[in-house]
Amino acid sequence: MNGRYPSSLLEKAVNEFATLPGIGTKTAMRLVLHLLKQSDDAVDRFAEAIVRLKHEVKYCKVCHNISDSDVCSICSDKRRDASLICVVENVRDVMAIEATMQYNGLYHVLGGVISPMDGIGPSDLNIDSLAERLKDGSVTEVILALSTTMEGDTTSFFISRRLADTGVKVSVLARGISIGDELEYADEVTLGRSIVDRTSFEAKI
Amino acid sequence: MNGRYPSSLLEKAVNEFATLPGIGTKTAMRLVLHLLKQSDDAVDRFAEAIVRLKHEVKYCKVCHNISDSDVCSICSDKRRDASLICVVENVRDVMAIEATMQYNGLYHVLGGVISPMDGIGPSDLNIDSLAERLKDGSVTEVILALSTTMEGDTTSFFISRRLADTGVKVSVLARGISIGDELEYADEVTLGRSIVDRTSFEAKI
Repeated sequence: MNGRYPSSLLEKAVNEFATLPGIGTKTAMRLVLHLLKQSDDAVDRFAEAIVRLKHEVKYCKVCHNISDSDVCSICSDKRRDASLICVVENVRDVMAIEATMQYNGLYHVLGGVISPMDGIGPSDLNIDSLAERLKDGSVTEVILALSTTMEGDTTSFFISRRLADTGVKVSVLARGISIGDELEYADEVTLGRSIVDRTSFEAKI
Repeated sequence: MNGRYPSSLLEKAVNEFATLPGIGTKTAMRLVLHLLKQSDDAVDRFAEAIVRLKHEVKYCKVCHNISDSDVCSICSDKRRDASLICVVENVRDVMAIEATMQYNGLYHVLGGVISPMDGIGPSDLNIDSLAERLKDGSVTEVILALSTTMEGDTTSFFISRRLADTGVKVSVLARGISIGDELEYADEVTLGRSIVDRTSFEAKI
């Protein structure tokens, strides 16, 4: 398929799909031809869902999570522990942590991580508003739940420095062997970290 | 991510993407969040490309290929050999064969293959219109370029029977070792076929 599309409409649709991350021209073609086989209604519904999301979606004024209202359902839930804030990169991370059912505090969505290569500096992220949330003294701990990549670590470091004089405890996620992993296949940095940060056996039962 | 979406708009868009073949919920989420980061214009363009394709695309009256006009650019090209028709399953196959630059005849797009499991019978495919195209006697050869799957072979067999009394020559694609393949890795059916259907060495030079 060398771009000799039989129809310019087809070509445009394929090119649009091919702008999505991880979708090449061949996959885009497959997806577009699949949509073309669906009913008019189904295709309109597909397109409308995207357009409505883009135009109508809101971001929580407090934590910047995607929301249908001005304040998201997590921030407005009185049963949640408002003294804990978990800082994450994006909405997917919120959903991943929520799915664990192990966390009952609030979130703060940065909207990315510091990445000079991509031109993303601290001012492009929701860091000022995080500092703002700590001002009334009700928050006692900020959990930095960022990826252990160069960018994630840089961002964690930047935020911890930024919050240093607030007196709020700053913690990070435990690093160690994944549950279900075999020791011999763990990378040595993780394995080393898991020995240094070993925890009491009783605590795990 | 257990479907605890922070926004119903997000959930709808993700669910729409997840209806596409090969796209699970996690990938759908990634694609939707990518679109959400793009400009309003870009997202509108994306949605419009799909809707326009679905509502405005035409199918060539002659060969059923996707087209911007009533008769596609291949069928209306006077320089092409109108005595040859290559029968393919779908538009992608037309594009794949066109990309080889080895074929100068016309096409006939079946729109699928016979597949009783999926409820697709001969009457769901563009087979009648193929027989119709042969009536004026200008076509001398029909090349069946279908996949060597059970369904493809069934369809080839059905069409060859259907065209038996037209007097038109019916051929199929050569089967054999792929160019660049090592013999030892070829499956035995293909290898066996490549010995039976061996061609003159001089013809390859």
